[in-house]
Amino acid sequence: MNGSECAALRLNGYPCKRPESTTANDFFSDVLSVPGNTGGNPSGSVVTAATVDKVPGLNTMGVSMSRIDYAPWGANPPHTHPGASELLLVLEGSLDVGFITTTGKFVGRTVCKGEMFVFPRGLVHFQRNNNGSPAAAISAFNSQLPGTQKWAEALYTALPPVPADVLARALDVNDCMVEPCVI
Amino acid sequence: MNGSECAALRLNGYPCKRPESTTANDFFSDVLSVPGNTGGNPSGSVVTAATVDKVPGLNTMGVSMSRIDYAPWGANPPHTHPGASELLLVLEGSLDVGFITTTGKFVGRTVCKGEMFVFPRGLVHFQRNNNGSPAAAISAFNSQLPGTQKWAEALYTALPPVPADVLARALDVNDCMVEPCVI
Amino acid sequence: MNGSECAALRLNGYPCKRPESTTANDFFSDVLSVPGNTGGNPSGSVVTAATVDKVPGLNTMGVSMSRIDYAPWGANPPHTHPGASELLLVLEGSLDVGFITTTGKFVGRTVCKGEMFVFPRGLVHFQRNNNGSPAAAISAFNSQLPGTQKWAEALYTALPPVPADVLARALDVNDCMVEPCVI
Amino acid sequence: MNGSECAALRLNGYPCKRPESTTANDFFSDVLSVPGNTGGNPSGSVVTAATVDKVPGLNTMGVSMSRIDYAPWGANPPHTHPGASELLLVLEGSLDVGFITTTGKFVGRTVCKGEMFVFPRGLVHFQRNNNGSPAAAISAFNSQLPGTQKWAEALYTALPPVPADVLARALDVNDCMVEPCVI
Amino acid sequence: MNGSECAALRLNGYPCKRPESTTANDFFSDVLSVPGNTGGNPSGSVVTAATVDKVPGLNTMGVSMSRIDYAPWGANPPHTHPGASELLLVLEGSLDVGFITTTGKFVGRTVCKGEMFVFPRGLVHFQRNNNGSPAAAISAFNSQLPGTQKWAEALYTALPPVPADVLARALDVNDCMVEPCVI
Amino acid sequence: MNGSECAALRLNGYPCKRPESTTANDFFSDVLSVPGNTGGNPSGSVVTAATVDKVPGLNTMGVSMSRIDYAPWGANPPHTHPGASELLLVLEGSLDVGFITTTGKFVGRTVCKGEMFVFPRGLVHFQRNNNGSPAAAISAFNSQLPGTQKWAEALYTALPPVPADVLARALDVNDCMVEPCVI
Repeated sequence: MNGSECAALRLNGYPCKRPESTTANDFFSDVLSVPGNTGGNPSGSVVTAATVDKVPGLNTMGVSMSRIDYAPWGANPPHTHPGASELLLVLEGSLDVGFITTTGKFVGRTVCKGEMFVFPRGLVHFQRNNNGSPAAAISAFNSQLPGTQKWAEALYTALPPVPADVLARALDVNDCMVEPCVI
Repeated sequence: MNGSECAALRLNGYPCKRPESTTANDFFSDVLSVPGNTGGNPSGSVVTAATVDKVPGLNTMGVSMSRIDYAPWGANPPHTHPGASELLLVLEGSLDVGFITTTGKFVGRTVCKGEMFVFPRGLVHFQRNNNGSPAAAISAFNSQLPGTQKWAEALYTALPPVPADVLARALDVNDCMVEPCVI
Repeated sequence: MNGSECAALRLNGYPCKRPESTTANDFFSDVLSVPGNTGGNPSGSVVTAATVDKVPGLNTMGVSMSRIDYAPWGANPPHTHPGASELLLVLEGSLDVGFITTTGKFVGRTVCKGEMFVFPRGLVHFQRNNNGSPAAAISAFNSQLPGTQKWAEALYTALPPVPADVLARALDVNDCMVEPCVI
Repeated sequence: MNGSECAALRLNGYPCKRPESTTANDFFSDVLSVPGNTGGNPSGSVVTAATVDKVPGLNTMGVSMSRIDYAPWGANPPHTHPGASELLLVLEGSLDVGFITTTGKFVGRTVCKGEMFVFPRGLVHFQRNNNGSPAAAISAFNSQLPGTQKWAEALYTALPPVPADVLARALDVNDCMVEPCVI
Repeated sequence: MNGSECAALRLNGYPCKRPESTTANDFFSDVLSVPGNTGGNPSGSVVTAATVDKVPGLNTMGVSMSRIDYAPWGANPPHTHPGASELLLVLEGSLDVGFITTTGKFVGRTVCKGEMFVFPRGLVHFQRNNNGSPAAAISAFNSQLPGTQKWAEALYTALPPVPADVLARALDVNDCMVEPCVI
Repeated sequence: MNGSECAALRLNGYPCKRPESTTANDFFSDVLSVPGNTGGNPSGSVVTAATVDKVPGLNTMGVSMSRIDYAPWGANPPHTHPGASELLLVLEGSLDVGFITTTGKFVGRTVCKGEMFVFPRGLVHFQRNNNGSPAAAISAFNSQLPGTQKWAEALYTALPPVPADVLARALDVNDCMVEPCVI
């Protein structure tokens, strides 16, 4: 990097070495080399992120990657990345994917091994393994730390909890429906 | 504006007049002068936006406002603005408001007339009128067209519909719970 | 916020707490809840800013608000915000407002209660209460700390003073006119 | 340039040729090769701009230059560039220069041939030839079309005119002082 | 996308459909599904880009991907992407990779299947297959059209040609060395 | 500057004083006042940079300048600035200049005293004194620290050295040609 970007000891809260102390390992990572274990996840998918908190050399670079592993019929449930766009490439298997625009249009299709799909910045989107074999994908983001909000998880497992009546009214459903939605 | 920003006839898809043909009315709007009619909205709130599609002079300016009117006990349900931050000022009444961070922390409190609350860019947030009188608020955005995704509405009323089993698996709930969630 | 934006203890010189230590009060403010006292201001207006130095949660959010209170016939004199756009909403009363383009065109009109006007980024603009009743307005900015340069004040009350002959020549007026302009 | 930046026929309202039709002359200009004639300017300076409206190849490049020629004792009066920073290099002679911060601090000094001074983005600043010989300078801007507002000129020669009482009240001076300020 | 980003028919010179006419296929691509044929390339590598000119839905999204296939011992020779950062993930095989900082430091190492390396924005970098088996990698960019300048190719095969004496002097080598460097 | 931009003690790794401790000298520099000594440079040119590491007041300002002095027939060899655009103005003499696009087009011409040429961001470019008299130029950049990669120097003098076979394969030339290219 040039000195303008990374001369401070810390930048954005992450280590930022001076050029003379930078090493190749700061720009290297093996964090995506092992498939995520989808066994422990009720939705049937595991997202492994290669972001600035794992790869120091990404600091100020504005790019990162994630690997998503899907159990048979597993899903990466509806979620948003605040402000980051995503470009997903299927490594193995076949996925049903889609996003919803701010005007309420659902834009989706099936994406097979070697194929790609764009999820525009900030819009809710999902992927679902559409068959009984495992699947895997790689995603590129135009942010070094996109962050993720899984919608159900964000609302139902926040701490402290979002008040139940807020959820009920907020979701336009009646209380008896929401109460049992414990995850 | 200077010529660099707005010399084209259209920019970002919105009219962009040359300086010599600009009039004061391009920078004026009365769109927020009338309270929204909360009677017709099941969630009990109406959002009126003063964005670039209503105020041509906002084109390339990176700022806009919305007015939110709340029926007694009405809510502006959980939603996101893709990439825009929001600063809300209560004009009338008292609201319970909050947002959820990407690490699952709920950050919220009561905000009364004349008080303000920040909703960081891209994070899910809501407001709820916490009593039996009408309420109103003004919000500022650092975008000329922030866009909005109301979460329940985005998932349950998208066209074409998001497949029911996707919603069920995605939300980690069982099908019988989701099916009746018709709005 | 996500960790990328606000993980450092300080960012831009303002406190930036780690997510785990953030509280709702960091995103809350009552600084605009009390009208400014216009009695003590010769121009007849008081600007109260809700910016990052008052509301820590605005750090990195790129948005802020101000409240302007006007005495009868009071004015918010010609000023600029370096690099920030402004969208003003009249809360009470009626204002004559306007800005001047870089090509020397004056763009202005009367704006009444509930109506709005855009002041494009960096251009000189003003508001004037056009009658004998108090007035008030709320402004949104696409900056967490827009800063303000009141033109007369900037030139005539800077410390150390701008040399008198500079002002005279600079303003294309003769010395005898400028000397008495003590505020 | 790469296709992303300049593939459209027009971008930002300026011609943007496709790569295959670009010529070297699009990136060339002799507009600064002749000194400005300071004889016709009451303030004693002439600014010649090399901006995107003169040099098509600057479109999307985010940089431009100006040449300023000063008559003996001539001044480039207080002005702002909306949103652009400036770095001035004295080619000939000696200038008194300065800017005023948003907190009212005057920051200035003498700058001689071969020396430089920074004018931070959006802040009011000026230069004055401090002796009886002609002077000249080159300024760099981080904008392809910075735009300029000369403060006195903007207020007193805008069309349509800014109302006299607005100027008087706005400048915190009494009417009899402002009326004769005809340029 | 929201209307602000993509309401125009063309933006940046690429098609930009209105939301109502967008289809899922605009956001889909199979351009990376077939390995590049490294047989026809003297350097022993083929780069296949999934950029906005191939995937219309990437317009305004600020992200893209490339697939690089390497023959045994093949190399992706030293090159730059003007302004874009790159994050490379090895899909198959083992690569020697590296970049050079603006202070002349070479930062490189071996990267194996499943491992990643960061190439900071604008810096010269390369990859080389370090053994006799084919290799492949995926790269993410924070630009929808990063563009590439292969250094040798840019200098030696530009049209019209860069004058030979310029190359010779420029490269600090004598003419007899440069003349035969025909590719 | 306003407090938002420069309130921290250090920003981007460079000193950033609080407004109250800023002095005029932070915004001043004489670093370009002395011509570079071209005698000690084999390529026959010397670049003197006025960037944030020399002029503290440039921090966060996004602009800088360089002075280039050319010996008779001297050249500023092919190089890139990662992400910054450049606008060059010839102060003395006559230069042959040019850049190469990402599509392999050479765009260049002769530029004489008082004339200018644009080098688009990130593209390789050069200047050559086309006669037997000294020459000089001033360049403006839209970055406070553009950084430079001289292509031959970057590849052949990096430390640790780039492996010879990488250079050979990378440059598509045979080893015997590259070996003697010692600088």
